Amino acid sequence: VERMKEMAVGLSKKVKKIVKDDPRRVAHCFKVGLALTIVSIFYYVTPLYEGLGVSTMWAVLTVVVVMEYTVGGTLSKGLNRAFATLLAGSLGVGAHQIAVLCGDKGEPILLGLFVFTIAAGATFSRFIPEIKARYDYGVTIFILTFSLVAVSSYRVEELIQMAHQRVSTIAIGVATCLGTTVFVFPVWAGEDLHKQVANNLDKLATFLEGLEAECFGEKARCENLESKSFFQVYKSVLNSKPSEDSLFNFAKWEPGHGQFGFRHPWKQYQKLGALSRQCASAMDTLSSYITTFPKSQATATDVELRLQIRAACAEMSSESAKALRELSSAIRTMTAPASANRHVAASLEAAANLRSALSEDVALSEIVHLAMISSLLAELVLRTAGIAGS
Amino acid sequence: VERMKEMAVGLSKKVKKIVKDDPRRVAHCFKVGLALTIVSIFYYVTPLYEGLGVSTMWAVLTVVVVMEYTVGGTLSKGLNRAFATLLAGSLGVGAHQIAVLCGDKGEPILLGLFVFTIAAGATFSRFIPEIKARYDYGVTIFILTFSLVAVSSYRVEELIQMAHQRVSTIAIGVATCLGTTVFVFPVWAGEDLHKQVANNLDKLATFLEGLEAECFGEKARCENLESKSFFQVYKSVLNSKPSEDSLFNFAKWEPGHGQFGFRHPWKQYQKLGALSRQCASAMDTLSSYITTFPKSQATATDVELRLQIRAACAEMSSESAKALRELSSAIRTMTAPASANRHVAASLEAAANLRSALSEDVALSEIVHLAMISSLLAELVLRTAGIAGS
Repeated sequence: VERMKEMAVGLSKKVKKIVKDDPRRVAHCFKVGLALTIVSIFYYVTPLYEGLGVSTMWAVLTVVVVMEYTVGGTLSKGLNRAFATLLAGSLGVGAHQIAVLCGDKGEPILLGLFVFTIAAGATFSRFIPEIKARYDYGVTIFILTFSLVAVSSYRVEELIQMAHQRVSTIAIGVATCLGTTVFVFPVWAGEDLHKQVANNLDKLATFLEGLEAECFGEKARCENLESKSFFQVYKSVLNSKPSEDSLFNFAKWEPGHGQFGFRHPWKQYQKLGALSRQCASAMDTLSSYITTFPKSQATATDVELRLQIRAACAEMSSESAKALRELSSAIRTMTAPASANRHVAASLEAAANLRSALSEDVALSEIVHLAMISSLLAELVLRTAGIAGS
Repeated sequence: VERMKEMAVGLSKKVKKIVKDDPRRVAHCFKVGLALTIVSIFYYVTPLYEGLGVSTMWAVLTVVVVMEYTVGGTLSKGLNRAFATLLAGSLGVGAHQIAVLCGDKGEPILLGLFVFTIAAGATFSRFIPEIKARYDYGVTIFILTFSLVAVSSYRVEELIQMAHQRVSTIAIGVATCLGTTVFVFPVWAGEDLHKQVANNLDKLATFLEGLEAECFGEKARCENLESKSFFQVYKSVLNSKPSEDSLFNFAKWEPGHGQFGFRHPWKQYQKLGALSRQCASAMDTLSSYITTFPKSQATATDVELRLQIRAACAEMSSESAKALRELSSAIRTMTAPASANRHVAASLEAAANLRSALSEDVALSEIVHLAMISSLLAELVLRTAGIAGS
C-alpha cells in the first residue's frame, strides 16, 4: 500500500509538471476528444450513416492518426494522407484493370507482383533523406492504400464506389482535424520555433552575465559555480536540435498566421539554432575548464597584466551578453537589432586588444598559446578517462 | 530535357550512396514486399478468405504500419499494436454493454462521452516522457481501437464476432512481420547500437592520432588542418544522439541474439555515447581554437619549455588515442580492455607533469590560467559574432 501511495504521488507530481510546462497540452487533449466526438456523429445520425456505410470507420481512423499537437504537424499528416490515398487509390484501380485482362488464374499472380514491386520501391524511397523528412507518412499511406485497393479488388465487386466512399471519409476526417487544430486554441509550430530560438539566445546571455558577475567582477570569487543556476542553463541548448528540426519541418507546412507570412524564412531559424549550439558547446568547454582546474592564487607579480586580462574578460562577456539579449529581443519583436553590432564590435575589440597586449611579450605569448592547446588537450584527456572509467 | 537528365543523374547517385552506405536496406525493401505478398494470400485463397471476410484487410494494414527496419522496431510496434488492440477492444465491448442499458436515446450520448474521456485521457498520457518513448504507438492504437469498437457497436450486430476476427487478423499481420524480420536477413537494433558506439570511439581516436601527427610531431607544421580528413571526423559524433536513442529504445525490445543476451546492459551504451559526445564537443573547441588563432612564430626564447609542452601534448594525444582504440576494440570483441587503463594513466600523468612544470613559475602559471580563460571567452565572442552576423 505504501509503495502504491508513493507511486501515485510521483505520478501526480509528473502530471502537474507536464501541465505547468505547457498548459496548451490540456487543450490539446480536449481537442482530440472533440474531433473524435464530431466524426462519430456520422455513425449516430442515420441519414449520414446510410450515405457512407461501413467506410465511416475510415473517418475515425483518420482523426486518430492525423491529429497532432501543432497545426503544421496536423496539416502535414493530413495532406500527406489525402494525396497519398488519392494517388495510390487511382494506381490501385489501374492495376486491377490490367490484372483483370489476364484471366482468373493470372489475376492474383499479377496483383501480387504489382503489390510486391510497388511496396519494395516505395519502401526504398523512404531511405532518401528529403522524402523521409517531409513525406514519410505519405509513403506509408501510399503503400497501405495501394495494397488494400489492389488486393481487395480481387474480391470486391463495386470497386469504384468503395474507392469513392473511402476518399470522402478520409476527407471528412482530415477536415475535422484541421478545423479543430486551426480554430480551437491553435498551436503553431512556427511560433514555437520562433520562441524557442529566441529563448535559447537568452539562455546563452544568462550564462555570460552570470560568468561576468561571478568571475570577472571586482569582488568576484569564481567559487561554487556548479551550484549556481546560470551555470547549467546553456546545457538545454546543446540538446535542442531534435525538437528544433521537427518544429522546422512542421512550420514549413503552415499557412501564414499572425506575424508570420506564408514564406517566412524558417531556414534562418535553423541556421541560428546551429550557431547557438556551437556557442553552447564552447561554453561547455569553458565551464568545465573553470571547474576542473583550481584557481591559481593571486600573487604580487605582474598585477597590471592580470588586471588587464580580467577587465578584458569582463568586457568580452558583458558585451557579448548584451549583443545576445539584443538579438533575442529583436527576434521576438521582429525588428532589426538596434545596437547588437555595436556590442559585438566592442567585444571583438576587447578580444583583439587583449591578444595584442599578450603578444607584446613574444616569448610569453608563445608559451600561452602552447599552454592553451595543452590545457584543452588535458581537458580531452580527462573526458577520455571518463569514457575508460565508465 | 537537360535539367531532367541532371536530376536523373543526381537521383541515381543518391540511390547508389544509400545502397552503399548500408546494403541491408535493399534486403529490407524486399522483405516488406514479401510480407505484404504473404498476407495477401489470405485474400486470394477462397477457404482462408471465408474464415475472416473483410477483416482480412486489417492484416494488410498491420503489415504496412508495423514493418520496421530493425527487429526491435518491428517487435515494439507489433507488441504495442497487439496488446493495445486487445485491451481497447475489451474496454470497448464493456462500454457498449453499459451504454445499451441506457436505452435508445441515451446510448449514443453515453458512447460519445466514453470516447471523449478515454481519448482525452490517453492523449494526455502521451506527454509523459516514459510513455512517449516506449508506448506512443500503443496509445495511438488504443485510442483508435476503442473509438472504432465503441462507436461502431451502435451499428454492428455481431460485435463479438467482429472483435474476434479483427484480433485474429492483427495477430496474423504481426506474426507475418515478425517472421520476415527475424528470419530473413535480420537487422538487430542492438547490434547496430553496439557497432555505432564502438565506431564513434574510433572516430575520436582518429582525430587525436591525426592531431598528434600534424601538430605535435617532430616535423609537424599544424597547417591546412581544415583540408585534412581526420579534422572533420569527430563532427558526426556530435549529432549521434537521436539515432543512438532510437536504437537504444528498440534494442530493449529485442530477445537475446548472437553475442547479446536477453538482459544485455544497453544502458551502458547510452552512457558511453553521452561521454563520447562530451569528448567530441571538447574536440570541437580545440580544433576551432587551433584554426582561428594563428600560430605564433617560433622564437629562440624558452626553447626548453616549448619543447616540453609539445612533448606533453604529443604524449597526451597519442596515449588517449591508444586508450580509445583499445576501448573500442574491447567493445567489439566484448572483452575487458587489456591496457586501456595504462594508457589513460600515462596520458593523465603527462597532463599532470605539464601542469606542475608550468606552475613552477608561479607568475607565469597564473597568467597562463587567465589567458586560457580569456582565449576561451574570445572563442565564444567569435561565435556570438557569428550569430549576430547571420
